[in-house]
Amino acid sequence: MAKPKGKPADQTLCPIARAETVVGDRWTVLVLRELFARNRRFEEIQAYTGATPQMIAARLKQLEADGLVTRRVYNKHPLRHEYHLTEKGEAFFPVLFALRAWGETWCKSPKDGLSMNYTHLGCGKPAGLGPVCQSCGEPLHWADMGAERTPKYQRERDARWEAFKASR
Amino acid sequence: MAKPKGKPADQTLCPIARAETVVGDRWTVLVLRELFARNRRFEEIQAYTGATPQMIAARLKQLEADGLVTRRVYNKHPLRHEYHLTEKGEAFFPVLFALRAWGETWCKSPKDGLSMNYTHLGCGKPAGLGPVCQSCGEPLHWADMGAERTPKYQRERDARWEAFKASR
Repeated sequence: MAKPKGKPADQTLCPIARAETVVGDRWTVLVLRELFARNRRFEEIQAYTGATPQMIAARLKQLEADGLVTRRVYNKHPLRHEYHLTEKGEAFFPVLFALRAWGETWCKSPKDGLSMNYTHLGCGKPAGLGPVCQSCGEPLHWADMGAERTPKYQRERDARWEAFKASR
Repeated sequence: MAKPKGKPADQTLCPIARAETVVGDRWTVLVLRELFARNRRFEEIQAYTGATPQMIAARLKQLEADGLVTRRVYNKHPLRHEYHLTEKGEAFFPVLFALRAWGETWCKSPKDGLSMNYTHLGCGKPAGLGPVCQSCGEPLHWADMGAERTPKYQRERDARWEAFKASR
């Protein structure tokens, strides 16, 4: 992993440097994306991110050590865990949402279309790209939004899952 | 660099994966932090991030290739460039600001204190951690804010600069 072992960022007051010591790795952010999508099992995370088991295992272990993720047993024989976001992990949502807005606006072509549509449950209307609701102007929070994948993105996700299963 | 060369993320509709292909690297984000702080010269970026010249050069080159940064000559003999944010680069501010909020809240201890104080120029009062102004409730934009380092963080920055100069 690219993450520095000694966490030199702890020597700085800069919150961006501190945060990036935890989340400054592409695969770590993709693992968090899956946990926000409530895909909490190792296989799901592996299938939808496209990372190797070793890469996922290392990120989950580090996220647990950094306090963003907690493990819960869902099967005893054999022992299997689900990975849940902690309060610190859930608090990362605004970063992910801002990253989504920037990615949709600047890293895709118009013909791609959106991957997800969010509805602001507070007003029942489309939330837009944030940080405030495009319909009512209120600040958006994870718990106040419904998320729906576009058909095209859902097909991509389904294909990833099928390819993953076929490879085993 | 940890960045994948072939940009496999272009194969996905997910804007987070797309964005992370560009900014999913700790040092890249720290370079952007310096550009937002208007430290546009190679030496300044090197001194304040603590990275090696090779690391900075690779990130700046990639940021230019990805359209976030543009080079401008400020000295002809010898040839020297300043690095400026493009519109795409400036549009990354909400991500950086959200990362700052998360880092201040979850990656530091209370005794550390804030590194920066932002003033919302629209209302003239403290902006807080965003995404909306804590004083007036309006969404915060980079161009509408004044930023001031706390004395403790300014001392850290000054010490980095002095150490950098002494090392040359």
